[in-house]
Amino acid sequence: MNTFGNRFRLTTFGESHGPAIGGVIDGCPAGLAVDYVLLEAEMTRRHVGAHATTRHESDNVEFLSGIYDGKTLGTPIAFIIRNSDARSSDYDALDKLLRPGHADFTTLQRYGIRDPRGGGRASGRETAVRVAAGAIAKMILNGKGIGITAMASCGTPAENDSIGGTIECTIEGVPAGLGNPIFDKLNARLAAAMMSIPSAIGFEMGTGFDAAQMQGSEFRDNWCVSDGHVATTTNHCGGIQGGISNGMPITFRTAFHPVVTIPQPTECLAPDHTLTTVTPAGRHDRCHLPRTVVVVEAMAALTIVDFVV
Amino acid sequence: MNTFGNRFRLTTFGESHGPAIGGVIDGCPAGLAVDYVLLEAEMTRRHVGAHATTRHESDNVEFLSGIYDGKTLGTPIAFIIRNSDARSSDYDALDKLLRPGHADFTTLQRYGIRDPRGGGRASGRETAVRVAAGAIAKMILNGKGIGITAMASCGTPAENDSIGGTIECTIEGVPAGLGNPIFDKLNARLAAAMMSIPSAIGFEMGTGFDAAQMQGSEFRDNWCVSDGHVATTTNHCGGIQGGISNGMPITFRTAFHPVVTIPQPTECLAPDHTLTTVTPAGRHDRCHLPRTVVVVEAMAALTIVDFVV
Amino acid sequence: MNTFGNRFRLTTFGESHGPAIGGVIDGCPAGLAVDYVLLEAEMTRRHVGAHATTRHESDNVEFLSGIYDGKTLGTPIAFIIRNSDARSSDYDALDKLLRPGHADFTTLQRYGIRDPRGGGRASGRETAVRVAAGAIAKMILNGKGIGITAMASCGTPAENDSIGGTIECTIEGVPAGLGNPIFDKLNARLAAAMMSIPSAIGFEMGTGFDAAQMQGSEFRDNWCVSDGHVATTTNHCGGIQGGISNGMPITFRTAFHPVVTIPQPTECLAPDHTLTTVTPAGRHDRCHLPRTVVVVEAMAALTIVDFVV
Amino acid sequence: MNTFGNRFRLTTFGESHGPAIGGVIDGCPAGLAVDYVLLEAEMTRRHVGAHATTRHESDNVEFLSGIYDGKTLGTPIAFIIRNSDARSSDYDALDKLLRPGHADFTTLQRYGIRDPRGGGRASGRETAVRVAAGAIAKMILNGKGIGITAMASCGTPAENDSIGGTIECTIEGVPAGLGNPIFDKLNARLAAAMMSIPSAIGFEMGTGFDAAQMQGSEFRDNWCVSDGHVATTTNHCGGIQGGISNGMPITFRTAFHPVVTIPQPTECLAPDHTLTTVTPAGRHDRCHLPRTVVVVEAMAALTIVDFVV
Repeated sequence: MNTFGNRFRLTTFGESHGPAIGGVIDGCPAGLAVDYVLLEAEMTRRHVGAHATTRHESDNVEFLSGIYDGKTLGTPIAFIIRNSDARSSDYDALDKLLRPGHADFTTLQRYGIRDPRGGGRASGRETAVRVAAGAIAKMILNGKGIGITAMASCGTPAENDSIGGTIECTIEGVPAGLGNPIFDKLNARLAAAMMSIPSAIGFEMGTGFDAAQMQGSEFRDNWCVSDGHVATTTNHCGGIQGGISNGMPITFRTAFHPVVTIPQPTECLAPDHTLTTVTPAGRHDRCHLPRTVVVVEAMAALTIVDFVV
Repeated sequence: MNTFGNRFRLTTFGESHGPAIGGVIDGCPAGLAVDYVLLEAEMTRRHVGAHATTRHESDNVEFLSGIYDGKTLGTPIAFIIRNSDARSSDYDALDKLLRPGHADFTTLQRYGIRDPRGGGRASGRETAVRVAAGAIAKMILNGKGIGITAMASCGTPAENDSIGGTIECTIEGVPAGLGNPIFDKLNARLAAAMMSIPSAIGFEMGTGFDAAQMQGSEFRDNWCVSDGHVATTTNHCGGIQGGISNGMPITFRTAFHPVVTIPQPTECLAPDHTLTTVTPAGRHDRCHLPRTVVVVEAMAALTIVDFVV
Repeated sequence: MNTFGNRFRLTTFGESHGPAIGGVIDGCPAGLAVDYVLLEAEMTRRHVGAHATTRHESDNVEFLSGIYDGKTLGTPIAFIIRNSDARSSDYDALDKLLRPGHADFTTLQRYGIRDPRGGGRASGRETAVRVAAGAIAKMILNGKGIGITAMASCGTPAENDSIGGTIECTIEGVPAGLGNPIFDKLNARLAAAMMSIPSAIGFEMGTGFDAAQMQGSEFRDNWCVSDGHVATTTNHCGGIQGGISNGMPITFRTAFHPVVTIPQPTECLAPDHTLTTVTPAGRHDRCHLPRTVVVVEAMAALTIVDFVV
Repeated sequence: MNTFGNRFRLTTFGESHGPAIGGVIDGCPAGLAVDYVLLEAEMTRRHVGAHATTRHESDNVEFLSGIYDGKTLGTPIAFIIRNSDARSSDYDALDKLLRPGHADFTTLQRYGIRDPRGGGRASGRETAVRVAAGAIAKMILNGKGIGITAMASCGTPAENDSIGGTIECTIEGVPAGLGNPIFDKLNARLAAAMMSIPSAIGFEMGTGFDAAQMQGSEFRDNWCVSDGHVATTTNHCGGIQGGISNGMPITFRTAFHPVVTIPQPTECLAPDHTLTTVTPAGRHDRCHLPRTVVVVEAMAALTIVDFVV
């Protein structure tokens, strides 16, 4: 389903070339003053970036409910972002064709029907909704002294090609005791949140995959108590033990594969299951990582806020 | 909450040194013939292993409901595994102490109270319940031609120390079209499932973290059609695109950190927040990976079955 | 939360005097041809009625997503209904005052804040969203031969007063076997659905409260088999046994209390907990039953469709 | 599904003639002292009653997890009640036959298979699990000053026949502000809870069906303020307005149809869809209302506790 979270619950909707994309937040506490400047700043962070697309999306967030006199009412907060400047003619040639590496084929297998314009529901454009909702979540977290910062690391995209990368994220100020044992572990939630971002292909907490080659004596985060405050000397586990936060900074890293639409001849699958070669002309990022940093932060915020409201 | 899955739903319970651990499966289709031989074999796989503990757990699964005349009724399947041979005296010295790297401290922060005997709810023993339920899930999947195999890779544990490792898993026979776009992606579900296993610290689909350094032209899985059957020439994405299976084998890898209880002097946290050094005497694996292979398969089975019942 | 259903899931939002009310339907099957004529007809049924309000709400349903080329995509269907013609000045006098019999006081207790204009989220206007979503549900049910009809029964409202009534509903064409045992009984779901409608105060299946005074020999619905088709000679239980449909028509009745805003002097609660007498001037129904018939049908449709998609 | 509640979540299992029935409570707060005397008293209240069955069920509740040293751990509380004294030979004649008025036929339609012994999952015996869990819920509510009392009203059962009745329930001490607007109204939850009890056929809040014939001026619960405390002069609505408690006692009434198994010739449906007349010999209540009072209280407790934990 298109819903994220249990207590602070975001339901999203929208195809990239339909009338609008948007979301409904259910469970936002009443009385929160909406910080429109922060919201605008977050939307802009997603919008622009070093290697980012030149498509000028008007990511104007229009609120329809749940806010009165600048404050949240506790009722659902619905918002929409109109789709404009959508030159769907760019995609016309691809309309019936299923691109390799995209969700075109799997969407058709799943639903038997698809909106062929620009990726439809599976377009990266849907992440704008995550960023808007994430901004609301950040407003709540900021009020509790919880801060989230992410940073991208990626190579230089080759000529007419794209490149992947990783995004590292740190959440500071999370009190010890957040999360659940067994299935609904905080790290399991973060993993699901990150892997739900388009192009995500790997996730690790703390030292992550390197820990697979460490010995217990090396990996173990030992206690360090000063002035009655409990901490650990190292943070190999990334701030979560047994699925529950231990009060240390929560750290994790997400790997993203490169954008698969590149301006090179591409064999697409036609409805009759023959292959046709086209060279994509649409506006696509060569490296989406700079734009994705704020999406990672948004999903982290939506994950954490669900445990604190 | 202690529930996994939406349609095929497993709820688990039990502390390692209480009367029993167990689970309730809700949503298992009616009319399934229970394969007790498969169940027993799976329980044994978890029980023994090259480097495994010498504790003789009697992992006898006792069914209490949902099965009549060897077939499932469609009603909840409850089962328990009695705890026996629990030499809790091994743990007595540690009773009030909070071990580093464990869930002791975080559990106490979360609940304000804890069962100090052998890890309580956070003990690795709870994975026996996952394996039992996973066996039921496998029976359903087998009937649909879906097979799951995992394989561990780990170094040699040092003298008086432990070692981590990775487990690779392949799911074959999953038809194209399974999973959901946006949040509830099949890869997001698998990530959460794997990260919920004790000691899991990293997860990657297909080429995973290596994809972060690949170019689009290199990473992209191109089409290959033969006799009308659609496949891809490579499988870098690991069989899932846009959150939905594409019909190729689903492949992923999970990293596990080493067991943190080792027979070396260990500084534990006392209730008064002082540190006390003890040397653990309990029976602990030096490398839990061999035992965890079947747990990975069980969680994969529980994840996939939720989409096919 | 503001969500109804598990598989065909409606999330609603909106205050009566905010920019818009609306909903998001998640789980609607792909490929359904949207019948705009039926939708318009249902919206009109809610809009007008013998004793209905004279407020001319422009209940124009604007779809934002999930539909392409007249057919559903399987993705979330979002729709909004703009609020217009909202003479909020009618309510100004009441802005700070808490009316008796309304949700004003309880909303304030629940959230500590409220939108004072015309009932806000608790306004009967939100039922327009239920009707729009119910129309989509009916399109699916119609395709499966399931029909829903409701009928109101109410007295004549007195001069400057209002009157309650009951609405009887019959669902025909439901196959035997729908519903669940124990908690999630089909009758329990219908009860919750009906009791969620503003002013609902009672619910009964089949013979309902009269059954409390019947003997077993009298109440029992005996079998009657003709041409291999199983039916019952009577339908005292209202078509559901053990929480599961038995193939007979599903019948139930919902009681509604009278509208509590009447054009008579009314003691309202002021913020300082004193009482102030005002005489409401807003446009309110004297009997809302004629308008509510289609709401009952919509909620019945949303309840049933959740079991058949 | 066989789960009730969102935050304080009860999952039940068990067939009446299988090894055991039982439940798992997830979400019970940690640190609650378990009052075994109250638990035992509640189980006894369900067990005996003026017109009750003579079957001596050993309703001994065995806890398997979630409790240590007499206190809840915050982890799942699993408990089982062994089935004993089950003279299934009483039912042998009926094994293949589908009784009128029971869930036999609908269960078979739903699952295609059923446990024929004594009602299986649909037996009234499952209510013992509700009572046990309800007792835990009451322990929490008692600590918050919330009390629940129910009272049955039924006629005299005729010779060789059964009789229905109503149960009135009052919940005192619920603070104003509990519940949710729109779908998840407190009254909708109570309705679903009550209608989920075997034989329930009607539900009403406050004045209920009588309100259908009242005028607004008559029905409206007017304010009455004394010493700053807000109350209403009447309580026609039954303590809930707009889905949210208003601080007045919550009152509702549930109607139950008579037991349908009576010691009279009964036409049952055979697998070949012919009718066969048998005269039931099993031990069945002639009026189950006295036994059901504590079940009503238990379901009310489970409903309310879900909003306060």
